[in-house]
Amino acid sequence: MESIAEKLAGKQKEISIGEFFERNKHILGFDSLTKSLVTAVKEGVDNALDACEEAEILPEIMVEIHTVDDQEYLVCVEDNGPGIPKRKIADVFAKLLYGSRFHDIRQSRGQQGIGVSAVVMYGQLSTGKPTIVRSKVLEKDYAIEMSITLDTKKNKPDIISKDVVLWEEKEHGTRFETHIEGLLRSGDHSVFEYLKNTAIVNPHAKITYICDDETIVFKRATEQLPPKTKAVKPHIRGIELGTLVKMVKSTDRRNLSSFLVNEFSRISYRTVKDICTEAGIDEKTSPSDMEISDCKKILKATEKVKIMAPETDCLAPIKSMLIKKGLKNVLKGYKPEFYAPPTTREPSVYAGNPFQVEVGLVYGGNLPSEGAVGVLRFANRVPLLYKKSACATTTAIKNIDWRIYGMDQRGGKGMPSGPAIILVHVASTRVPFTSEAKDAIADISEVVEEIERALRDCARSMRTHLNKGKRRKKMAEKFMVAKDILPMIAEKSAAIVGKETPSLEKVMTKIMGVVYVENSFKKNGKKWSGTIDINNYTSKNRKINVYMEKPYPDTVLISSEPEPINNGDHLKWKLDSLKPSKGQVIQFEYNGDLEKNDLTGIEVYIEGVPETELIGADTLPDDWGIEMAEIKEGE
Amino acid sequence: MESIAEKLAGKQKEISIGEFFERNKHILGFDSLTKSLVTAVKEGVDNALDACEEAEILPEIMVEIHTVDDQEYLVCVEDNGPGIPKRKIADVFAKLLYGSRFHDIRQSRGQQGIGVSAVVMYGQLSTGKPTIVRSKVLEKDYAIEMSITLDTKKNKPDIISKDVVLWEEKEHGTRFETHIEGLLRSGDHSVFEYLKNTAIVNPHAKITYICDDETIVFKRATEQLPPKTKAVKPHIRGIELGTLVKMVKSTDRRNLSSFLVNEFSRISYRTVKDICTEAGIDEKTSPSDMEISDCKKILKATEKVKIMAPETDCLAPIKSMLIKKGLKNVLKGYKPEFYAPPTTREPSVYAGNPFQVEVGLVYGGNLPSEGAVGVLRFANRVPLLYKKSACATTTAIKNIDWRIYGMDQRGGKGMPSGPAIILVHVASTRVPFTSEAKDAIADISEVVEEIERALRDCARSMRTHLNKGKRRKKMAEKFMVAKDILPMIAEKSAAIVGKETPSLEKVMTKIMGVVYVENSFKKNGKKWSGTIDINNYTSKNRKINVYMEKPYPDTVLISSEPEPINNGDHLKWKLDSLKPSKGQVIQFEYNGDLEKNDLTGIEVYIEGVPETELIGADTLPDDWGIEMAEIKEGE
Repeated sequence: MESIAEKLAGKQKEISIGEFFERNKHILGFDSLTKSLVTAVKEGVDNALDACEEAEILPEIMVEIHTVDDQEYLVCVEDNGPGIPKRKIADVFAKLLYGSRFHDIRQSRGQQGIGVSAVVMYGQLSTGKPTIVRSKVLEKDYAIEMSITLDTKKNKPDIISKDVVLWEEKEHGTRFETHIEGLLRSGDHSVFEYLKNTAIVNPHAKITYICDDETIVFKRATEQLPPKTKAVKPHIRGIELGTLVKMVKSTDRRNLSSFLVNEFSRISYRTVKDICTEAGIDEKTSPSDMEISDCKKILKATEKVKIMAPETDCLAPIKSMLIKKGLKNVLKGYKPEFYAPPTTREPSVYAGNPFQVEVGLVYGGNLPSEGAVGVLRFANRVPLLYKKSACATTTAIKNIDWRIYGMDQRGGKGMPSGPAIILVHVASTRVPFTSEAKDAIADISEVVEEIERALRDCARSMRTHLNKGKRRKKMAEKFMVAKDILPMIAEKSAAIVGKETPSLEKVMTKIMGVVYVENSFKKNGKKWSGTIDINNYTSKNRKINVYMEKPYPDTVLISSEPEPINNGDHLKWKLDSLKPSKGQVIQFEYNGDLEKNDLTGIEVYIEGVPETELIGADTLPDDWGIEMAEIKEGE
Repeated sequence: MESIAEKLAGKQKEISIGEFFERNKHILGFDSLTKSLVTAVKEGVDNALDACEEAEILPEIMVEIHTVDDQEYLVCVEDNGPGIPKRKIADVFAKLLYGSRFHDIRQSRGQQGIGVSAVVMYGQLSTGKPTIVRSKVLEKDYAIEMSITLDTKKNKPDIISKDVVLWEEKEHGTRFETHIEGLLRSGDHSVFEYLKNTAIVNPHAKITYICDDETIVFKRATEQLPPKTKAVKPHIRGIELGTLVKMVKSTDRRNLSSFLVNEFSRISYRTVKDICTEAGIDEKTSPSDMEISDCKKILKATEKVKIMAPETDCLAPIKSMLIKKGLKNVLKGYKPEFYAPPTTREPSVYAGNPFQVEVGLVYGGNLPSEGAVGVLRFANRVPLLYKKSACATTTAIKNIDWRIYGMDQRGGKGMPSGPAIILVHVASTRVPFTSEAKDAIADISEVVEEIERALRDCARSMRTHLNKGKRRKKMAEKFMVAKDILPMIAEKSAAIVGKETPSLEKVMTKIMGVVYVENSFKKNGKKWSGTIDINNYTSKNRKINVYMEKPYPDTVLISSEPEPINNGDHLKWKLDSLKPSKGQVIQFEYNGDLEKNDLTGIEVYIEGVPETELIGADTLPDDWGIEMAEIKEGE
């Protein structure tokens, strides 16, 4: 029997990390031909954006996909980042688990030092060909170009050739070219979709996508880089007991008090007192004297004591305005009737990792009312296209009883259905992905709960909107009836008693108590002409401002009576005070490339009248007047 | 700018595999407290079963879970395997990516050399405590006991203590004890469920589960070990181009022909000729002279040339009989009306890896008819409890339009609903799990398609059964009507004409053309008495054998008229030839522990009558007469 134990034991040996990932390439996102292309592009673009943002450079990224052969493509990603010094190029591109951000606690796209090396590895595995990398740093007037493969047995680069090349059109930057096996598809899981969604949440980047003969440019929409994230210390709440035990053993701090204050974020001496009292441990205790049971008491105490939420500067949420803008940009074709004010939650913590959830919701219009609602998922500003059903965002959506918010949902469980699209973004110093492929966020309860809270926020706005819609619909019906019938009654009565038909404005004012707005836009040869007719059927004087979205940029305002104020993104008319029963009409004309520009969908907003006393227009949205970035798909 | 490139580059460094997995512990199955316990037990039991089977020892496994504190448990797994030699113990338990089966191409539960070391790592991370391992090999009369942790920075074991201990009750075996944070739950995702399902597909193992004060024994049901799997050479179909390129570069073979025959499985010199002709490459070519494009041609050619399916001896399917038995064992409470003959497909290949799919299906009886059908998922004889929606088995089930097989399914898509349970087993030399947690099988198209084919096989049997059921139901109704009404008519007619009521058997025989069987079992004090009444209402002589399942083992047959043949698992009565219109009655009595044993559900089968001419019993199932293993939950 000894011989069997020995025989089996003799076969035990170390497995190389390279061979491990080569075999488990599906964990890295290379589990289907379509996905392989998306993953290769994604890893390149993630690195490019991270590098540019760290160097505070406005990103200019070029992605190329060239068909080489049946199921073989050449994928190239080029950036204007700071470049990589010669001695580091090979390791960055052909060594797994090699990176700069693994130990930092702050939000970034790449973290594990696997991504782009996995692309190189998959390229050589599937096509047998090396990757060509070119990089130039500012102070050199030449670039380095290398042809590299990854030696999976040793997990280190094999440099096949190394050259000095001129790269005159670039001051600095990095480009790689990899042959990979793949399949180019369109639709929800395509490279195009990935880049489009990337552009939505990264409006500071210019992304050019060349796919064989076609070129698509996602233009830069803002010159402002997202705030640079800072590395922070760990947050104690939810940290693993084993990690704390390791920390007290290795710290140089003399007492528990300074240990807690200095090695964790957001702990003051005041908080230490509360923690130590709750735990029943002297704050002067030397960390090296602490037993496992003491550490456990400290962790238990942190659950009960109030500790500040983590710093926000390690995170870079997209923020309300850009979420709304992003949604508007994708969805403009659908003319949704309602954009819920996006929710950006306060940062929270899971297992010591700060994270922050943002949600946007759009409802109605021409969005398809059949089938499940649409979901746009993002993690650290990176779109998630695959494994939707395994994602915490989906879990959270399914956990909510959407029926109470006015949406259809079979049995109050599962995906709600109806004309809506939900955007969810999770930003974290460490997004808990279900696998290295970073397709889906794991069902960590803290994260799921935060997403649920944000969803409920948006859902409540939607319910208010839907209810308000019902009330306003009723009011409008009443108003329209009165508006149509009262004149007829007046006319008939007047005829009977042989008097002149009386003016009805005052009666209407008494009955209705609303401001009534009517817009009309119509095409008039090469021009569009519009009127906005405002009538004050309330008993108060009204100081009203009228706002109108600026139509497409290649249209020109020819005339307007009265004169508006041109406010960049919109026109504003400041009207004179309107007395009860009085009205005013605005008239204007537009010119321009009207072939493609249909103005009838343009929105008019009113300032100076409460929502409940307004018919025919909406009140000014919260974020109106802020200059919004514009994302465009060009050419 | 150079300084930024340099500054960023300076932060680039290697990341330890230990730290990588410590951070990404959810990839290893430690993503929730409930799951942590299941994962810890699973990794231990997988290793135990693999070790016993390799050493050809009938496995005797003990799993213990002791509550230590709020959310802290002591998990122990003990086996009677061959044991681990002293010098290897620490590495096996506290070094990630260390194992014996990574490079072997054959079916086994563990493969990557991560599992049990991940348990040790999660234990120390979550509770700060080391794992205690004890192991004894046959030739030593003492065991080695070690207290170990895993140094994640270096990915190597830290041995805290090492002792020699007696372990008199064990000749050889291994035991480990780990404190882990977790949550003990019952239900579908519990340790109990995991062990029960493990017992179903591993009837050669005795598994004892001690959970605090409760002990459950899953008894061994067969003394026969599953066939030992053999390591095979890779199959060329679907192998990666990059792998082939690497192989031609490193081989010692002088020509392409001997290279292909010797380094791949199932390629004969005859096949080589076909491949080389198709590829347009001389079979005498030296592998070292081959370009990437030549390798690509060879691979393309293998898609067109007929190559034998992979060897089956690297795989150990459960096989039809045990699948049915396993299902019967779990489902006996539901008394399903139909067990589809389980399908074991021929082995197939994905990306060069042999795999084999097996499916069982059970329908009707008291299975819940509301809601989705139940699914039992297994990979390499290991139950899969988590991530059902991300699993290839679920994809395959959803891909089928079950309505054409008589099951409800909304819109012909998604999970079918109705009183059915489907068992799917995928055996492979390399199961393509979606992550290291081995919760779900990735949607590899070859695998999904094979599962679909097997499902359709079972579904067709089910449809035949349902249709037959309808036909037989009609026939039975007709028969019952005739059986009830004819005597009444006969009696009345006889009374009218003043004659004796005639015997109706011959008329019945003419009208019906069936053999009618009626069983009754009733409790009679401490005994059960039964009758089986067989009537031949056909026009032929019938040589009939009657089979009855043997009731629970602790019951005893006291008497039977006629005498049966005792065939191990069942009784068999060989009846004398039954002439048309004749009948025979079998009477018997059982004794034993009848408190828990309800005999009314026992099945009776008839041999010698076609299914379409039989009412009241089923024909003999295909696998009947084979000695079946029995799986029991004891105490």
